[in-house]
Order: sequence, then structure tokens, then C-alpha cells
Amino acid sequence: MTDFNKSIDKTLVSTGHSALQRRFYEIRNNKIFELFVISIIIFSALMIGANSYQISPTTQTVLSVLDITITVIFLIEIVIRFIGEPNKKRFFHNFWNIFDTFIVIVSLIPIEDSEMAILGRLVRIFRVLRMISIIPELRILINSLVKALPQLGYVMLLMFIIFYIYAAVGTTFFAPINPELWGDISISLLTLFRVMTFEDWTDVMYESMTVYPLSWTYYLTFIFFTAFAFLNMVIGIVVNVLEQERQIEEDLKNKVCEEPTMAELKEELAEIKALLIKQQK
Amino acid sequence: MTDFNKSIDKTLVSTGHSALQRRFYEIRNNKIFELFVISIIIFSALMIGANSYQISPTTQTVLSVLDITITVIFLIEIVIRFIGEPNKKRFFHNFWNIFDTFIVIVSLIPIEDSEMAILGRLVRIFRVLRMISIIPELRILINSLVKALPQLGYVMLLMFIIFYIYAAVGTTFFAPINPELWGDISISLLTLFRVMTFEDWTDVMYESMTVYPLSWTYYLTFIFFTAFAFLNMVIGIVVNVLEQERQIEEDLKNKVCEEPTMAELKEELAEIKALLIKQQK
Amino acid sequence: MTDFNKSIDKTLVSTGHSALQRRFYEIRNNKIFELFVISIIIFSALMIGANSYQISPTTQTVLSVLDITITVIFLIEIVIRFIGEPNKKRFFHNFWNIFDTFIVIVSLIPIEDSEMAILGRLVRIFRVLRMISIIPELRILINSLVKALPQLGYVMLLMFIIFYIYAAVGTTFFAPINPELWGDISISLLTLFRVMTFEDWTDVMYESMTVYPLSWTYYLTFIFFTAFAFLNMVIGIVVNVLEQERQIEEDLKNKVCEEPTMAELKEELAEIKALLIKQQK
Amino acid sequence: MTDFNKSIDKTLVSTGHSALQRRFYEIRNNKIFELFVISIIIFSALMIGANSYQISPTTQTVLSVLDITITVIFLIEIVIRFIGEPNKKRFFHNFWNIFDTFIVIVSLIPIEDSEMAILGRLVRIFRVLRMISIIPELRILINSLVKALPQLGYVMLLMFIIFYIYAAVGTTFFAPINPELWGDISISLLTLFRVMTFEDWTDVMYESMTVYPLSWTYYLTFIFFTAFAFLNMVIGIVVNVLEQERQIEEDLKNKVCEEPTMAELKEELAEIKALLIKQQK
Repeated sequence: MTDFNKSIDKTLVSTGHSALQRRFYEIRNNKIFELFVISIIIFSALMIGANSYQISPTTQTVLSVLDITITVIFLIEIVIRFIGEPNKKRFFHNFWNIFDTFIVIVSLIPIEDSEMAILGRLVRIFRVLRMISIIPELRILINSLVKALPQLGYVMLLMFIIFYIYAAVGTTFFAPINPELWGDISISLLTLFRVMTFEDWTDVMYESMTVYPLSWTYYLTFIFFTAFAFLNMVIGIVVNVLEQERQIEEDLKNKVCEEPTMAELKEELAEIKALLIKQQK
Repeated sequence: MTDFNKSIDKTLVSTGHSALQRRFYEIRNNKIFELFVISIIIFSALMIGANSYQISPTTQTVLSVLDITITVIFLIEIVIRFIGEPNKKRFFHNFWNIFDTFIVIVSLIPIEDSEMAILGRLVRIFRVLRMISIIPELRILINSLVKALPQLGYVMLLMFIIFYIYAAVGTTFFAPINPELWGDISISLLTLFRVMTFEDWTDVMYESMTVYPLSWTYYLTFIFFTAFAFLNMVIGIVVNVLEQERQIEEDLKNKVCEEPTMAELKEELAEIKALLIKQQK
Repeated sequence: MTDFNKSIDKTLVSTGHSALQRRFYEIRNNKIFELFVISIIIFSALMIGANSYQISPTTQTVLSVLDITITVIFLIEIVIRFIGEPNKKRFFHNFWNIFDTFIVIVSLIPIEDSEMAILGRLVRIFRVLRMISIIPELRILINSLVKALPQLGYVMLLMFIIFYIYAAVGTTFFAPINPELWGDISISLLTLFRVMTFEDWTDVMYESMTVYPLSWTYYLTFIFFTAFAFLNMVIGIVVNVLEQERQIEEDLKNKVCEEPTMAELKEELAEIKALLIKQQK
Repeated sequence: MTDFNKSIDKTLVSTGHSALQRRFYEIRNNKIFELFVISIIIFSALMIGANSYQISPTTQTVLSVLDITITVIFLIEIVIRFIGEPNKKRFFHNFWNIFDTFIVIVSLIPIEDSEMAILGRLVRIFRVLRMISIIPELRILINSLVKALPQLGYVMLLMFIIFYIYAAVGTTFFAPINPELWGDISISLLTLFRVMTFEDWTDVMYESMTVYPLSWTYYLTFIFFTAFAFLNMVIGIVVNVLEQERQIEEDLKNKVCEEPTMAELKEELAEIKALLIKQQK
């Protein structure tokens, strides 16, 4: 490991040379380099899958050697990316670069340590997420999802208010009937989420109805309200997406066809009329 | 409590002073005042949650003191709002003001009274709904939902007719098989709602099929009809929303660009032609 | 009953009188008459509901008297409608008139007869459907649903082909494992519908996987295909509805604003140019 | 069978005769011929259904004779189609022709052979798919579905990444709790698909929560992410379909009305102005 660290240090020292930077910049934007990194990520994902099966000690050793290799490749890749970046500050303004660096650095922690073992394994799993940072189409997809979230914020808040009120009411009435489902407000929230997914919700309801025969109103109004709020959320997203489409289309139209406007035509007509009137005098 | 009532009386007496009214009006529209009220509501919601856990008598006492404080703050807030309102009549034309006043007044009932205890606890829960009356975006959301309801009225009526007919048929045939599911028309309606949510619906069906082997037609047609009616409802909402969007867009277009119409252009052309013809003579 | 029949005969005899026809036509289109019939239908629906509860013999007698009254009112109503119709042939071209007449005639069969009792009770239930024939908005809703059906025919055919093939394959492989679920092709079709609604579908799958470990592919591809076909159906309806909306809007636009077309304007300009050229010579 | 093969050979030999080809081409495009083939396919489907019931040996014999007849009819039909095709090469460029030929050739394998029996039965089932190759509307439907798939590819990839990461995490933590649900990564993927369909997902969750009380976050975030990705997929399809509709509409508009453009009108106006200015000098 120390030899490896030395080579890294050397690389970092030589970043002043712009020739190296240009070369790394070229590598970074190379399609073959990208495909190579993608295949390494897929291979890393398959290794995680393989690890979940019962494997012989020999295979185990092979896998751990391969794991170190992958970590090293990822480390080299991130260094290339960093050196290849003309503007070093911009590198850490990109969320995905920070994410990649974090994943690579945490991967350097050896797994053997029993306490950190779980963390090491989790980081190896999250390496699959690097697919998103590598493939631009996935990055665009995620970005558009994240952009849509704040607009849905108020619908989500409304939904949470509905959930909270019903959970509080549910705890008040049903806690003595079944504390496992309605014991306190957080358990009640979980039970209500279950009711919303229609998962054995009638069992929950029938149990309540043995004590409060009218408690079906509680469940039916809850389903009605959440379904309504959920529908609103879906419509919100659909309308949002359609508006974006419309915007793109309109921008395109404005750019492509620079047709004269009606106002321009009218001005033209006014000028002609002025000429004619002048002529007649 | 009596001291407190006195101060309220004094405030109400002094409402004639327009200086006070102006000051309270300013407080009412103050952003910090709004944030303070929102945080009190959130704190009140957290207290309700805390109450659902097993708590020591000391904490219980602290919580009941805090509860009185919140009630008093809410009472002061509503009084400020009322005094700050220039047009007193308009205050009670707003649904949310009435709702807030109702919640605050019922909160004044002491919880200790065992008979009213449940009501007192419920009112405290419904205080969370004050979030909707405080945050304008949530109020808009709710208003648009309420506006969409009557338009969906006929689809809901249709759905209820489908439910009612199937419930009546179900009671006629399946009541002797399982009175717990099909005993009378209201139980049957509940069972059909369960079938619509696909919750263990096959258990209900297989039981009926032991006596009437063709009863699967009953369940399949019911699922088909309700799914169809439900789909129609969703489409109704979507079309409704899209139309509103289109309307807003069109209104915007008409306001922003006051382009001359084709008719105006034609009139202009007719005038020019008339001038030319006159000239030729 | 005979007295009643006589009065009907008399009414039918007097249909020649156009004065009577005009009067009945007025009654037919009267808003109060419509509301009266709607309330009778609702009352009839409530009676069906009441019948499903355990009731005393006295109430039973009252209900059967009321039932006869409702039948008579419906009979009178249909006769008024028929006489009020200016064009008698057109009366039976309307599906809802035939439906109403059928319901009323079958209602005349006495319920006491044990063999016909079920039929009599069912007809009484289907009287609720008369709501659709009375309220125009519901009739429009149903008509638009019926119109959308043939367009969805091919998607439904495709879905049935998917179901049939999977049912045949399922019967071939899984019949020996569980004949209750896969015994013959019709039972398999029902089981697949159950899988499509996700109702305990994993129980069905895990059972098959004990014999054929790869049978999860069967279930997952089935869910994928049906979900895809279903999605297509929904989109088909949405696109259909949106197109109708667009058509209505376009028709409205064409009717309201009869703006001159660009072609007309160009013609006008050509004439002006001709005048000018002529002038110059 | 040999006699039959001879006749086929004879047919193939005589393909040089363009008169025969023209005649077969006419048969191929004949509506009655198409209906005949469709009814044979439906009959073949019904036979598959009949085979799934307990049938007497006599009926079995009748069915196997009928099966041979259907195979022969299908063989003749495909030969007619092939000979009727003016451009022989194009015949095998069409996916559906290759599919039909494959189905017919595999149908020629006798079922009696116990080893090939399953394959023979499956091929007979897949003959129902010939419905799609015969009915043009279904072919169009399938083609449009296949075309939509690649556009959804990235959303599916994203969904798979989510599934894979959760499966790896699930295996890491929950494998010791219940190896039947979380034993290795492929079992975990299946369990997660089950959770996504809400099928008894709370049973899975409650079991995990006995060991890790906070594991509900795992399930809730998973449901949230997959629901979000799924929603995105649906919206992707809807937007896609709407865009296609818009494209079709626009193309139609451009073709039908060849109205002069604003730019043309402006040019016309410029010419008139030039004439007027010239005149004044």
C-alpha cells in the first residue's frame, strides 16, 4: 500500500505540468475509458452479488484480491479525473465528484477490521451508484427528479399532516385494543402507511370494529384523503413534466422560425398608407 | 385563568382605538409572527406525539403546563388577528378563521373532566390542522381540491350506484354463506370496498364459489366496473387540471402580447385599396 | 290490480287526443316531476337496503305494500313518458326507454311465487339503475364510456391472448402441483387474474418454485406483460379523451372567431399590387 | 404424411409460374382467407383449452386427428404466403413471417415422443400468438410497444440499480434472520419485487424489525424510490405518446393547409412599398 501511496504523491506533485493535465483531460473524455470504468463498476456489482452466496475460502481470497484491484482502479480514475479538470475548484462543486471521491476514500479502509467491516461492505455496495455518476443520461434523470421534489413539497407536507392527525387519533382510541399496531405515534404512523398500501388493512380494521363498530369511517376517510392527496401529487408531477415539454417546444419554435410578427406587418401597412396619403395631397 | 380573562376583556374593550388596530394589523402580517405561530403549532404537534408514549408523572405535569401555555398563545393570536382585521364582518366569512376560533374555544375546556377528556384530546390533535390555515400554499391546495370535488360528483354517484347494486345482489345470494361479510347491505358495502382494494378478495370469492361456482363473474364484473369508473374519475381530474393550465396560459397570452388581429390587418388593407382606387379615377 | 289495469287501458285508448299528449309531454319535461321520480328511486333503493336487515313481520307487510306502490308509480311514469313522446317509434329506439319499460314490466311479477322470487328481488335491485336513465349527466357519462370501449378492443384482445397463453402454459406445468389453482384452463385464467391483482401471488409462486425453481420467470414476465398492456390501455383512454377535448376546442374556435385567413390577406395584397403596377404604366 | 410432402414439393417446383404466384398473392390478400385462418387459430386455441380438462380416450383421438389437420392447414397457409410473396427475400426480413414459419415447422414434430412432448405442447400453445401476426391492428400495437421500450431503457436501468443496491444491503443484514427471503442476492431481488407489489410486505418488515428496530427505514425508502422511478416511467410513456400524437397532428396540418406564411406576406408588402416609393420620385 505504501508503494501505491508514493505513486499517488508523485502524480499530485506533477500536476503543474499542463501537458500531463491535457493528456489526462483527453483520457477523461475518452469513450473507451468511460466504457472501461462502467465495466469495472458492473464487475464490482457482480462481485457483491457473488459474495452473498456460500463460497469456498479460495474464491474468497480471489475476491478480496480483486476487490483491492477495483479500489486501486477507482482511485487512479478519480485522480485522472481530478488532474484532467482544468478548473480545480469546479471539481468539488459537482455533487457527483464529491460522491465518487467519498466512496473511493472510504473503500480504502480495510474490511478485516471487524468493527468497520459492515461500513466497508456497505461502501462496496454503494459503488454501484457510481453508474449514475458515470452515465450522463442517468445523471440527467436523477437531476430532473431532484428538481421536481421541492415543487411537491407542499403536497407531501399536506400528506404528512393527514398522517399525523390520523396517527394521533388512532393512538388515542386503538392503543388499548392492539398496542403492537397503535402503541405510540410512530408505530401508528407505520400502521397507517401499511393501511395506505392496502396490506392486510381489513385485519386492522375488523379488529378495531370489535370495540368501536363505527371505526370503519376512520379507515375509509383516511384511504380517501391519502388517495386524493397522492392523486394530486401524481397530477402535480404530470403537469410539471408537460409544462417543461411545452417550454422546450416553445423555445425551439422561437429559435427556429423567425417569422415576422403581426405587429411588424401592421407597421409596414401603416407606412404604405402614409405614402399613399402623402401622394394624394 | 380569571386574570387572563380580564386582560382579554380589556383588549376587547379597547378595540375602538384605531392605533391599536393598525399595530395588530401589522403584527398579523409580520413574517416573524407567522413563523412563531407555525413553530408553536409544530411544538403542539410534537407534544401530542410525546403524550402517546409512556411518560413519568413529572413530565406529564410539565406537558399539561405547556399545553395551557399553547392554548393561551393561540387565544392571544386569534384575538390579535380579529382586532387586526379592518373589516370585522369579513373575519367570519373566512372558513379558516371560524375553524381557528372554534379550535381555540374548545381548547379552553379543561381536560381533567373525564367525560370531556376525549373531546379535549381530539381538539388538541386537530390543532395540527391550523398549519393549513396558516400556510397560504396549503390553503390554496385544499381550496383547489374542494373546487374539483363537485365536478367529480357524478362519477362518484355512478360509483355509488355500482356499489349499491352489487351490495344488494351480494346480500341476496351470499348472506347465508357468510353473514359476517354479507349480513346486511352496509356490511356488504364494506366487503365490496375491500374487494375493490384487492385485499384478500380471492378468499371472499373462493368462499362464494363453493356454493355458487359461477359467482366469479360477480367479482370480476365488479372489479371491472369499479376500475373503469375509477379510471374515469382520474381522467376527469387530469383533464380538469390540464384545462385550468391551458386557461391560465391563454389568459396570460392575451394579456401580454396585444398583437393586432388578422381582422385589423384586413381592414388596413381595405383602406389602402380604397385610397389607390380613388387615386386612379 | 284489475281496477288499475282498466285505468291504464283507458289511458292507452285516449292517446289519440293531442291535448292529453301535450299535457303529458309537459309533465315529462317538468323538473318537479323528475325530482319526484328520482326521490321514488332513492326510496326504492333504501327499501332494498332495509330488506337486507332482520325485520319484524309488520314492517315486512308495510314494505311489501310500499313496494306495490312504487311499482304502480313507475308504471304510471312510463305510461306518461310514452304518451308524452310525440314520435312513438323513437321511444323504443332509445336504449334507456326499453330498459325502463323492461324493469317495470318484470316488477309486475308477484314476488310470492318462490321460483320467481329471486328474479323479482333482482329486478327490484336493478331499479336503482333507473337513476342513470333519469339523470342526463349520468347517461352522458355512460355513453362516453361505451363509446371508448371499441377503441380499447384490440388492447383487450391482446391482454386476453397473453392471459390465454400463460393459462395454457400454467396448466401444463403446474396442474400436478396444485389442481385447485391450475386444474384446467378456466381455473388457471382465474388464478392469473388473481396474480395480476397481486393478491397473495407470492404464495402461488413459492408453491410452483418448490418443483420448478425457475418458475419465477413465468410470474415476473406475466406481471410485466399485463402491466405493460394495462398501461397501454390507460394511455389509450387518456389520449382518446384529450383528443376529444382538443376536437371540441378546435370546433369552438372555428365557430367563434371567423378571422380572415392568411390566404385571403395575400389575395388582397395581390390586388393592391396589381392596382399600383397598372397606375405606373 | 409422405403424400402431403409430395404435393408440397410439387408446389415448390412450380413457383416459377408467375400465374400461380399471382393467384396465391390474391389468396393471401383475400379477406375470407384471412378470416378462415383466424378461425383456425381460435379453434386451435379452444383445443388447447379442451386438452386441459379430463377427457375420454375417444375424444383424445379426435383431438389428435384435428391437431394434425390444423398443422397441415397452417403449413399450406405458410406455403401460400411464401409463394404469393413477389419478393422472396423480403419474406424473411419480416419478423412475423419467421415466427410463423418457426411455429409451423416445430409443430411438425410428433407429440408422442415423450422427451419432445413438452416442447410439442408448448409450440401448440404459442400458435395462439399467430393471432398477432394475422391481425394487423395487433401487430401495430406490439410494434409501438417495442419502439417505446428503448426510450424507457434508462429508467429501467435506474430501477435495477435501486433494486440491486437494496438487495445487497438486505442480504448483508437480513440473511441471518430469514435465509428463505434474504439468503442470497437473487432471492433478495425476488423478495424486493414482492415488497414493491405490496404483497405481505409488512410480514417481511416486522420480521426484520425484531432484530433491527430501525429497519422500517429500509423498506419505506425502498418503496418511495421504486414508486418514484415507476412514476417516472409511466410519465415517460405518457409524454412519449402525447409527443407522437402532436407530431402526427402537426404533419397533418402542414400537409393539408398550405397557407402563405407571414414571411411571404411581408415580402409582398415590401414590393408594394418599393412600387410606391418609385412612383413618388
